[in-house]
Amino acid sequence: MKPIKFSIIKELQGKLGRAGTLETPHGVIPTPAFVTVGTKATVKALSTDDVKNTGADVVLANTYHLYLQPGDERVKKFGGLHKFMNWFGPIMTDSGGFQVFSLGAAYGKNLNKVISITDPSRLISERSMDHEAPRLATIGSDGVSFRSHLDGSLHYITPEKSVEIQHNLGADIIFAFDECTSPSETVAYQEEALDRTHRWAKKSLEYHKSKINSESQALFGIVQGGREENLRKRSAEFIGRMDFDGFGIGGSFAKEDMSTAVLWVNGVLPKDKPRHLLGIGEPEDLFMGVENGVDLFDCVAPTRRARGGTLYTEEGKINIGNAQFVEAEGPIDPRCGCSTCKDYSLGYLSHLYRSKEMLASTLGSIHNLYFITNLVKRMRQAILDDNFEKLKTDFLAKYLK
Amino acid sequence: MKPIKFSIIKELQGKLGRAGTLETPHGVIPTPAFVTVGTKATVKALSTDDVKNTGADVVLANTYHLYLQPGDERVKKFGGLHKFMNWFGPIMTDSGGFQVFSLGAAYGKNLNKVISITDPSRLISERSMDHEAPRLATIGSDGVSFRSHLDGSLHYITPEKSVEIQHNLGADIIFAFDECTSPSETVAYQEEALDRTHRWAKKSLEYHKSKINSESQALFGIVQGGREENLRKRSAEFIGRMDFDGFGIGGSFAKEDMSTAVLWVNGVLPKDKPRHLLGIGEPEDLFMGVENGVDLFDCVAPTRRARGGTLYTEEGKINIGNAQFVEAEGPIDPRCGCSTCKDYSLGYLSHLYRSKEMLASTLGSIHNLYFITNLVKRMRQAILDDNFEKLKTDFLAKYLK
Repeated sequence: MKPIKFSIIKELQGKLGRAGTLETPHGVIPTPAFVTVGTKATVKALSTDDVKNTGADVVLANTYHLYLQPGDERVKKFGGLHKFMNWFGPIMTDSGGFQVFSLGAAYGKNLNKVISITDPSRLISERSMDHEAPRLATIGSDGVSFRSHLDGSLHYITPEKSVEIQHNLGADIIFAFDECTSPSETVAYQEEALDRTHRWAKKSLEYHKSKINSESQALFGIVQGGREENLRKRSAEFIGRMDFDGFGIGGSFAKEDMSTAVLWVNGVLPKDKPRHLLGIGEPEDLFMGVENGVDLFDCVAPTRRARGGTLYTEEGKINIGNAQFVEAEGPIDPRCGCSTCKDYSLGYLSHLYRSKEMLASTLGSIHNLYFITNLVKRMRQAILDDNFEKLKTDFLAKYLK
Repeated sequence: MKPIKFSIIKELQGKLGRAGTLETPHGVIPTPAFVTVGTKATVKALSTDDVKNTGADVVLANTYHLYLQPGDERVKKFGGLHKFMNWFGPIMTDSGGFQVFSLGAAYGKNLNKVISITDPSRLISERSMDHEAPRLATIGSDGVSFRSHLDGSLHYITPEKSVEIQHNLGADIIFAFDECTSPSETVAYQEEALDRTHRWAKKSLEYHKSKINSESQALFGIVQGGREENLRKRSAEFIGRMDFDGFGIGGSFAKEDMSTAVLWVNGVLPKDKPRHLLGIGEPEDLFMGVENGVDLFDCVAPTRRARGGTLYTEEGKINIGNAQFVEAEGPIDPRCGCSTCKDYSLGYLSHLYRSKEMLASTLGSIHNLYFITNLVKRMRQAILDDNFEKLKTDFLAKYLK
């Protein structure tokens, strides 16, 4: 018995996009769908009732964070993530690879500590900006060692260990351990990292299949390959050929590379399994992804933005700190159906943000999550109704104006 | 037409306590009742739906805070507090006196800046501990001047101004401007302050009666007098004789003085009007107050404690930071009917508090408010059922053990 069942209901004509359903042991996810991120087994500032009311069908928690605190063994003792966090719908966990590598590898400006790959205990980065990043991540031949950001304790994660942790956490959908590279790495390094990701995918899958959990938890393999067409396609072929239940598309993208990378990959991946574009959630990127055959997305942006005071509207993002909102009696977006827009004015939200009241983060997160989750639901409906292109054109014309 | 109607349903035999109803323009408050504090027009970390679900019948907002931010005129433009904060049940506002004086006057250790009372522009205190305390509060003959903790701007509050602000805020029940003294002041100062409070009560009432708002907003006079029997009784007689809609009992009490002060005052105040013991909310004090004829209580303790990780149970307060709760699979209190106890384990709460997640404050506040609000509801029911004494004895035996 497979733990999940994916069915395509309708396809976008001339494109890779499709609307479908993904049945999991904890309920059906109509796809495409936005997956709400609850890093530490909590969607920041929201109760699970709040999360449900944003329209969320599925939540993703982070393996790296939960492994360190409160520990996957403890979550298992509590009966798994669903019971622990009081979310009885579908749950996903990532592999921990993104945090261990990419936080450690430090994007952009922070590359000063990257050291030669020829050394097997290569120091990737010591990142001081993000206090939750692992310290001193080091690649060994079988896995990666790092120090906890909480207490400096030393940890070593292998593909088998990552899957074991995810078995303990007990999500409906889990991911193979992968290396998420920085786009600034050399092609040679991307290739080496990709080979490692592929070896680790095999090990993750073998370990998973050897356990009874594979009957109740689905394992997705992750396609990497950076911005290189041949690497992306090679990865999609390699990972796509394996007996995964679905696929993740990983990597950190420059905006302009994203649609080509997604097209390369989804043109190769088997059509009949779900595809998750990892860590992406801006409206324009969601349209791109859905159009090009992505079924699932997750991103911290809606909640992180909300805590910072940036709120989505159909006419673009607004900053609630702006003086014009102090006296605004209307809601964030009159077209929005979320409980924040129904009950609270921009002026009141402005007061809460200026007073640094916690409720500001709660109400802002409810709105942003509803906005993004509902936007993907509208895309799905538009595929079913044969008017995806119109929705995309109309929405982006207003949103990006 | 009076804006409120108070009816006594049943009295405690041989005591001053009573159960009743207080009808306000925004709904009925069954009394005795605990009033939930929403300082800045928000109960910290809770949406108004959350507040409703704790069983709250009435909310109290703070005039001092709202006058400074966002400003009472702005709240009025939004249609008043009910609409502004999305709470359509009864609302009370305090007079601002407590904040202006007592935060400024600095309890306990912080008395270094108290200067002679003979100087009419006497400096009460410059308080550095509480960042929301007014700066440099100074008593003039008609009112008090202070600097805003937000921007250092200078403000002068008179009794008329306090009532005007409260008219703009639009609560169902408002309070006369008073001086809340520190118990460490001399008797001579208590007496002088009490005369001032009485003069200001008259001015507050006169101003209120001259406005149409007196038809939709009830004004409560405040009894002061510190720990002095003659002053408390004199104040209860003076204030009780005036045409207020109800009464507040103000002051900061040493625990052992509280019940005597309440008895002195409620023995004198007219029986047919509601009495509010200001700023008190510990379970043992609530029993004492109810027994001695108090109808309303408010206190920040339930929410402030929750944010700090102290949670009420029938067997006493617990600190969620304690290691024993890390693996606890049961709720905070198995007898509690709140949504936190229904949905979340102590172990999960422990994880949220240790991870410094905002949801910790939300779930803890829901529990503490439900616990305290419901405890007073049980006292009311016990009066109706003729078993108040039993409830008190049984509860306190477990709670204080």
